[in-house]
Amino acid sequence: MDYEKHFADELNRLREEGNYRVFADLERHKGAFPSATNRTGGGAREVTIWCSNDYLGMGQHPAVLSAMHDALDKSGAGAGGTRNISGTTHNHVLLERELADLHGKEDALLFTSGYVSNWAALGTLASKIPDCVVLSDALNHASMIEGIRHSRAKTLIWKHNDLADLESKLASLPAGQPKLIAFESVYSMDGDIAPIAEICDLADRYGAMTYLDEVHAVGLYGPRGGGIAEREGLMDRLTVIEGTLGKAFGVVGGYIAASAQLCDFVRSFASGFIFTTALPPAVAAGAAASVRHLKQSGEERDLQKKRVAQVRARLDSIGIPHELNPSHIIPVMVGDPVKCKYISDVLLDEYSIYIQPINYPTVPKGTERLRITPSPVHSEKDIDRLVAALGDLWAQCQLARLPMAAQ
Amino acid sequence: MDYEKHFADELNRLREEGNYRVFADLERHKGAFPSATNRTGGGAREVTIWCSNDYLGMGQHPAVLSAMHDALDKSGAGAGGTRNISGTTHNHVLLERELADLHGKEDALLFTSGYVSNWAALGTLASKIPDCVVLSDALNHASMIEGIRHSRAKTLIWKHNDLADLESKLASLPAGQPKLIAFESVYSMDGDIAPIAEICDLADRYGAMTYLDEVHAVGLYGPRGGGIAEREGLMDRLTVIEGTLGKAFGVVGGYIAASAQLCDFVRSFASGFIFTTALPPAVAAGAAASVRHLKQSGEERDLQKKRVAQVRARLDSIGIPHELNPSHIIPVMVGDPVKCKYISDVLLDEYSIYIQPINYPTVPKGTERLRITPSPVHSEKDIDRLVAALGDLWAQCQLARLPMAAQ
Repeated sequence: MDYEKHFADELNRLREEGNYRVFADLERHKGAFPSATNRTGGGAREVTIWCSNDYLGMGQHPAVLSAMHDALDKSGAGAGGTRNISGTTHNHVLLERELADLHGKEDALLFTSGYVSNWAALGTLASKIPDCVVLSDALNHASMIEGIRHSRAKTLIWKHNDLADLESKLASLPAGQPKLIAFESVYSMDGDIAPIAEICDLADRYGAMTYLDEVHAVGLYGPRGGGIAEREGLMDRLTVIEGTLGKAFGVVGGYIAASAQLCDFVRSFASGFIFTTALPPAVAAGAAASVRHLKQSGEERDLQKKRVAQVRARLDSIGIPHELNPSHIIPVMVGDPVKCKYISDVLLDEYSIYIQPINYPTVPKGTERLRITPSPVHSEKDIDRLVAALGDLWAQCQLARLPMAAQ
Repeated sequence: MDYEKHFADELNRLREEGNYRVFADLERHKGAFPSATNRTGGGAREVTIWCSNDYLGMGQHPAVLSAMHDALDKSGAGAGGTRNISGTTHNHVLLERELADLHGKEDALLFTSGYVSNWAALGTLASKIPDCVVLSDALNHASMIEGIRHSRAKTLIWKHNDLADLESKLASLPAGQPKLIAFESVYSMDGDIAPIAEICDLADRYGAMTYLDEVHAVGLYGPRGGGIAEREGLMDRLTVIEGTLGKAFGVVGGYIAASAQLCDFVRSFASGFIFTTALPPAVAAGAAASVRHLKQSGEERDLQKKRVAQVRARLDSIGIPHELNPSHIIPVMVGDPVKCKYISDVLLDEYSIYIQPINYPTVPKGTERLRITPSPVHSEKDIDRLVAALGDLWAQCQLARLPMAAQ
């Protein structure tokens, strides 16, 4: 077996399909984000980032950075062990309390990433509750799918956000059988939002637990940044709320918030929680500062909403098609991996605008897109430049336009 | 189904077995590690940590901390996205180069943790090489086992460090079938070391790839801290070397080093790499500084070896049984989860010495132990206190002693 040849062949296949990924080498500038230095083969250029998940710019917030500097000065770099073996620092304890409070739950449990939190929590719940059946939304994130797959529990996939399909699947199962409904609030790539209340109604009716991934919503929605479930007054109806510290909170890490017993159960049995080094104390301190800040400040959320509305209105005014959705995510659909990458390359090379093309496997083939995430740190001038560049490119590439909105 | 009752029952079962874990809440003090503040229900006390995986104290090294402060000042807190979508910072690029150089490989690939690096890399290689059979050492770490399990590839488990058993399993497979031998260099809980050269010989003979986990060896062994494979001049014979930035390097994160094609293959197909927020730039910067420092400084390694030898000699002098092994890990065997936890509790409460009891599932039931990890930041006075405390406790608990070495 020629292993190297196999790797080369598979990579060439990706290249031929237009799905080979090239990472942009970026250096963000604290205080000047969304601006960053983009290094290429030979040189470097200043670019404006329009595709970050640092949705509110909290990655450069003074309160976050000062908490991280302080923790570094106080406790050093790493945690030095797993949570069980010398790696639980006081910063972890404080952050878990902050997160439990954010979601109105008894307890919270930290993981090294949002990916690991979904993988480990879903994997543990579905495998360690005897005969548990998972009812999984068809568009759930890869980390949820892998966690469910890892559990080897029986899984029923219901049509995306389709209550009738969910109900028919719930009704097909014996009343006494353990059930876990796994879904997201804001779906990252389309920006649509789940009917949480109705899903909780079905869960109650059929005796199911609910597991809600709010990674694209925490910090952003609800009066204290508790997510869509907070905004809609539903947090107490969900069994598990999962979130991330790496998007709107601007740092890194993932968590679940739930009953004390459920958190303790996952803590005690999840391989992906037990056998891994804890997050650095400075990361936990920075994340806690970010959560605390966004609990009492709505300023960042308000300005983000304004910027999202402005970008949408300006795209409409020149007929650039984008998916209408009730969230902060603006998917500009291209529908072809090669064109999508071409547009992204020209935006970067000629307009100094960085929007990564979103191709397979992140989205289904044929739905390739530019995913734009306006934030409170983008200025109106940034928006002018973005819309002008997209207008030029749409003309240049002869891409379809919608009827233009009244100007 | 009463879910809460199920959680409570399972947790009670752990408590009855003595396997329920209580995390020690610690606050390390930069510059004073291994000393830390241990918070309990009401109060707080100063303790000495003897079970950290910050093996060389690099978590408080000035070069590491200054690199982290600088990166925070320059680039802010988080990476703001996955590696593909705005999250590749220049610090990641530099760190991957540093790691490729450390192991004499063409390339390296960073993951959010060592756990994820094993899970994602093994899972991807074994599932995306058609008909691949994994030959896995019986004592491989949970993260390797989960990655292999995740791949759903055929797996043959060979007796721990047993070359004859490995060879018979290799010989049982068709010559042309793809094979991947997965093993560790230093096994964390027993501290024994694999016969790497002989395993590579077998791999050559039977056309297998080799995947070596060096997480408990990188930074610690070899003239530049490249691990056991560097020390033995074997790095070029291994297909993949996997390591961590969270133990001897003192920060957090995991990686693989391998050929450019192999790294690109895993980069392009591993769900656990693709769909997760990149490590913060400050973490990457701190880890790179640590790797760089330990490439040119042997001081920390030398002093650690001295401290390990001192602790071993002193334990021998009072007949406290510990596993003889050729590494820096000193397992003091207790063999009972309740006693093991009791000793650990008394060490903490009465002697201000923190050594977490290592119980199931980290080690097999019946092999419960205290795992002691001496480091260059432990003083001779710390060793005096440790040995005296263990002597008292061995008397108090009437635990078996070996014949005492000549004093």
